[in-house]
Amino acid sequence: MFYVIGLGLCDEKDITVRGLEAVKGASRVYLEAYTSILMIQQDRLEEFYGKPVILADRDMVETQSDEILRDADKEDVAFLVVGDPFGATTHTDIILRARALGIQTRVIHNASIMNAVGACGLQLYNFGQTVSLVFFTETWKPDSYYDRVKENVQLGMHTLVLLDIKVKEQSEENLARGRKIYEPPRYMSIPTAVSQMLDTESTRQENVLNPESTLAIALSRVGGDGNQQRIVAGTLKELQGQPPEVFGEPLHSIVIVGKRVHYLEIEYAEAFAVDKENWRRVARDVYGCAGL
Amino acid sequence: MFYVIGLGLCDEKDITVRGLEAVKGASRVYLEAYTSILMIQQDRLEEFYGKPVILADRDMVETQSDEILRDADKEDVAFLVVGDPFGATTHTDIILRARALGIQTRVIHNASIMNAVGACGLQLYNFGQTVSLVFFTETWKPDSYYDRVKENVQLGMHTLVLLDIKVKEQSEENLARGRKIYEPPRYMSIPTAVSQMLDTESTRQENVLNPESTLAIALSRVGGDGNQQRIVAGTLKELQGQPPEVFGEPLHSIVIVGKRVHYLEIEYAEAFAVDKENWRRVARDVYGCAGL
Repeated sequence: MFYVIGLGLCDEKDITVRGLEAVKGASRVYLEAYTSILMIQQDRLEEFYGKPVILADRDMVETQSDEILRDADKEDVAFLVVGDPFGATTHTDIILRARALGIQTRVIHNASIMNAVGACGLQLYNFGQTVSLVFFTETWKPDSYYDRVKENVQLGMHTLVLLDIKVKEQSEENLARGRKIYEPPRYMSIPTAVSQMLDTESTRQENVLNPESTLAIALSRVGGDGNQQRIVAGTLKELQGQPPEVFGEPLHSIVIVGKRVHYLEIEYAEAFAVDKENWRRVARDVYGCAGL
Repeated sequence: MFYVIGLGLCDEKDITVRGLEAVKGASRVYLEAYTSILMIQQDRLEEFYGKPVILADRDMVETQSDEILRDADKEDVAFLVVGDPFGATTHTDIILRARALGIQTRVIHNASIMNAVGACGLQLYNFGQTVSLVFFTETWKPDSYYDRVKENVQLGMHTLVLLDIKVKEQSEENLARGRKIYEPPRYMSIPTAVSQMLDTESTRQENVLNPESTLAIALSRVGGDGNQQRIVAGTLKELQGQPPEVFGEPLHSIVIVGKRVHYLEIEYAEAFAVDKENWRRVARDVYGCAGL
């Protein structure tokens, strides 16, 4: 059996009991490393499982999937992914490959940011499509995400915006010299994300986002221990103006609040607001949220 | 500490290790029974945890929340919910009450249908808003869900449709006589759901759903052991015509496939199709899905 197991959001203890049993029974355990290296450390997992964990980077998953799947028709192989196997990054390719080889697969689900985002108090069923925001450069500022946000905003839906990470980047020099030396990972911060979105707004000028009157909620390490989880609510301008440490450690996400927001959603999220009074005022006066 | 713990999708082993530790350390453990009674049985949980579990029905959660929260400032109390605490049914009320009483809360996330729906092969970020479909009666056929589906369909987004359950219903006689005797739970089946949706379509006639050319995917017991999980794909008419046992045990959900579907989504879901050739043909010819 080929198990694809979601590790959940934060650390080694977020695996399910079913998932842990599958890991314990597996003859080989792979950890999908593209996103995994961010929060869940290989050595902590190895200690927790009492067995070695093989890091599988994106290259390996794409080019050596048959090695990962080797003998999975006769014994159990576990493939671990952060969040849920069908979360923001999906792992359908390797499951399709297993199917083609006649190997039975089993997915063990877990929380991902796609559902845990509900922790901010906004109702999941009021979210529209999800978008990703990539790092802008001087010459490359892709703005197709803006059209999606616009569609959600026009319908009054909330939008989950997933922020870019850069891992395994090479400097131009190392790339030119063919040296496999990688830069440290980079994670987009909330102030950077807001600045980029307002940059797109000022270029496109389609009245989708407004620094003073668009409400948003920043999240990081949802479900994390102690002070790890951070949820911060405010106008885009308020979020842009916060010092980065307010938002905690990466990964970060941000939700654009839609106009159909219910007052109970506003009240729940008020606990996370930079400026509670302004949060409520904008919801009432700009969003027209009844009941506040 | 007041712990609100997601149990995940299927049985006692879907709890996370972190969640199980919180249960073991709690002086009282409540199980939110409104949806919980469906799949996860109290006695199995009690055996697994080695301690009693108190059933908390909706009445109790609404009217006796202070009893549930009693002493949670001094000791640990666990409140278990099926899926994720912020899934389709949310539990913000009791968390707000805890906040008001100055009790610390901690949410332990898990998978819910809101993210595990990705198991059907459709990308989560292409889903629009989620809708619920309630049982129609002779005189009451609420159709506001149809407007939401229409919005998603017009944008080309997928729609997750959650199907009604009826628990703790009283017969008219028992209600009249004030007898707290309840009918067995009822779960909406996939053929019923499709019939209701086509009924609304024929009343509204806004060309949102079509029996022959709207693709949909039915899901039940996602992540379940052995043969429990069922995923069935086809046109609405094909799904409507299947015998109920094809769809497995409740709870059921159904996804309306949006026009922006990618061919890789179609290919992944083809494995679940009632008629693979027709599935692919409709995707190509009606949805205009390039690459098939």
